[in-house]
Amino acid sequence: MSQFRQNPVTKQWVLIAPSRSKRPEDFRTYSVGFGLPDHDPACIFCPGNEHKNPDLCEDVCRVPNDKNWQLRVIMNKYSALENATIYRNRQFYHSQAGYGEHEVIISRKHNEPPALQSAVLVQQSLKMFQDRIKEIYKDPKINYVQVFHNHGRDAGASLIHPHYQILATPMVPPHIHDEMRGCYHHYQLTGHCIYCDIIKEETKLRDRIVYEDEYFIVMSAYASRSPFETWIIPKRHHARFEATSDIELLHLSHVLKKVLGSLYLKLSDPPLNFYIHTMPKSNDKHLIQEQKSYHWHLTVFPRLTIWAGFEYATGIPVNPMSPEMTAEFLRGEKS
Amino acid sequence: MSQFRQNPVTKQWVLIAPSRSKRPEDFRTYSVGFGLPDHDPACIFCPGNEHKNPDLCEDVCRVPNDKNWQLRVIMNKYSALENATIYRNRQFYHSQAGYGEHEVIISRKHNEPPALQSAVLVQQSLKMFQDRIKEIYKDPKINYVQVFHNHGRDAGASLIHPHYQILATPMVPPHIHDEMRGCYHHYQLTGHCIYCDIIKEETKLRDRIVYEDEYFIVMSAYASRSPFETWIIPKRHHARFEATSDIELLHLSHVLKKVLGSLYLKLSDPPLNFYIHTMPKSNDKHLIQEQKSYHWHLTVFPRLTIWAGFEYATGIPVNPMSPEMTAEFLRGEKS
Repeated sequence: MSQFRQNPVTKQWVLIAPSRSKRPEDFRTYSVGFGLPDHDPACIFCPGNEHKNPDLCEDVCRVPNDKNWQLRVIMNKYSALENATIYRNRQFYHSQAGYGEHEVIISRKHNEPPALQSAVLVQQSLKMFQDRIKEIYKDPKINYVQVFHNHGRDAGASLIHPHYQILATPMVPPHIHDEMRGCYHHYQLTGHCIYCDIIKEETKLRDRIVYEDEYFIVMSAYASRSPFETWIIPKRHHARFEATSDIELLHLSHVLKKVLGSLYLKLSDPPLNFYIHTMPKSNDKHLIQEQKSYHWHLTVFPRLTIWAGFEYATGIPVNPMSPEMTAEFLRGEKS
Repeated sequence: MSQFRQNPVTKQWVLIAPSRSKRPEDFRTYSVGFGLPDHDPACIFCPGNEHKNPDLCEDVCRVPNDKNWQLRVIMNKYSALENATIYRNRQFYHSQAGYGEHEVIISRKHNEPPALQSAVLVQQSLKMFQDRIKEIYKDPKINYVQVFHNHGRDAGASLIHPHYQILATPMVPPHIHDEMRGCYHHYQLTGHCIYCDIIKEETKLRDRIVYEDEYFIVMSAYASRSPFETWIIPKRHHARFEATSDIELLHLSHVLKKVLGSLYLKLSDPPLNFYIHTMPKSNDKHLIQEQKSYHWHLTVFPRLTIWAGFEYATGIPVNPMSPEMTAEFLRGEKS
């Protein structure tokens, strides 16, 4: 019983094809972090090797700001190439210098991914994301800041030591652009934010809701691109993650830990990514409408399938597990 | 020295970031097919197990049409779900029954991927793709037919036995839609086909051209999403692969074997996908403009990097190797 489903925001299609598949627990994988020590002297991110990755700057880079840091920001800055001419035939093709900002946020323990960290440490990380986003947006050439996390080799992590990355770009990236456009369109049509409407819609049947508290809703996405794609959406409408209040960050840290912890336990520490989508820098005449129509959110994306020729050729991901089944499994009704 | 580059057709951005990387030969991987026998009695695609995967139909499914077949088509049809109501809340979300056609084309030898096959067998396969596309388009509910190949587990192949897949969809998939739009836009602006213009542009400096003959040009794509992304573009303008002449298919079989053979040898049989983009079914008033603006092509996509959180969050692939370097390497000037 397969079904094409459309992401209500971006209008992207996915093919949910559960006939090919199995039960949710069959997606258990190898454990990314099995048997690691809490400190590895050979790891360049571990305490003792701070000199190999200089601190970003004096004042903001460590929490607490001494050698017992639990969280640290280091820099990985692209060279600014704006005036470099690399190819002569650029009048036909378009390019831009690889200008941007690339930072890495490291937590102390080698074997403690966010799923196992204390809620306090997760909250401090979220706060650090906010601070960095606000700081980076001061650069007039930057228009978008992407915060993301890679866990496990199959999720693109080249180092096992837990870390987050922040990559800022001069252009608004296509996926954020598509979301903005979808939100704006829905707002023009209905006068509502589409994410607020998704929350309203999902709470009718609750078949894709995994968890909720006063501030957040956690759901298996209707048009999940991969098994266990999970959306964490704040109930209060706000376009910008970086403007989220401290009380919301406190709740988010608990909710995020709950989601990651549950994937860790129920799928044996799977490879995964998570990332935050927040409103790009905006200074044009549409600012108010964009703030009313866009709604920041966090996406958890376990890497349990391999995209094949069909996905790269067409842009339609094939997902072998329905989100209704993954939500039920994560709620613990069948496990 | 990193650089954002835009695909001239779809306007998609990629980030070419060679500072992170290495030489082309460093992308050599494990060999997908190392040490396989030419026949495996346990393989469901091998001769002797034909009864486990029934032929698609009597007349067209084997070449030659007997037990010594070298090529065979089997069916994997989705159930037609048009009238099935799966979710009650579909007035908010959009879905479509997973209607379509899914066929598999198998070549005889267990250990002989297209890179190692005879040009005659590759040509017969290409001819078979044409026949199947034309046949499947007779179904009025089908609007696009995607032909693709997965080689190696990291490219999404679940079986090692060489095979192609054909998956037909009721909608025009997003990537084909984006290409059509880009082609149409360029045609309206300039009166030319953009792929014809790409050929003209590339032959000026030739720094991304890998090979060409009378009928085809082979190039490392300007905005390659991954190292060694290779485009095979016919020199004669035509919107439809399935309308390509026999003489062009003969040349294409040689060109494709050359590309796949060269990746096989120089990168030690890497995991890869390839796929053909051809014009969707069209019966609206824009048909003539679409035929003039769209240009079929074949893309070879080696799977040598893992997409991480940044790619899935933003839609901007990070490619650690410039196409100018991969083209030079494939031409054999430095190897």
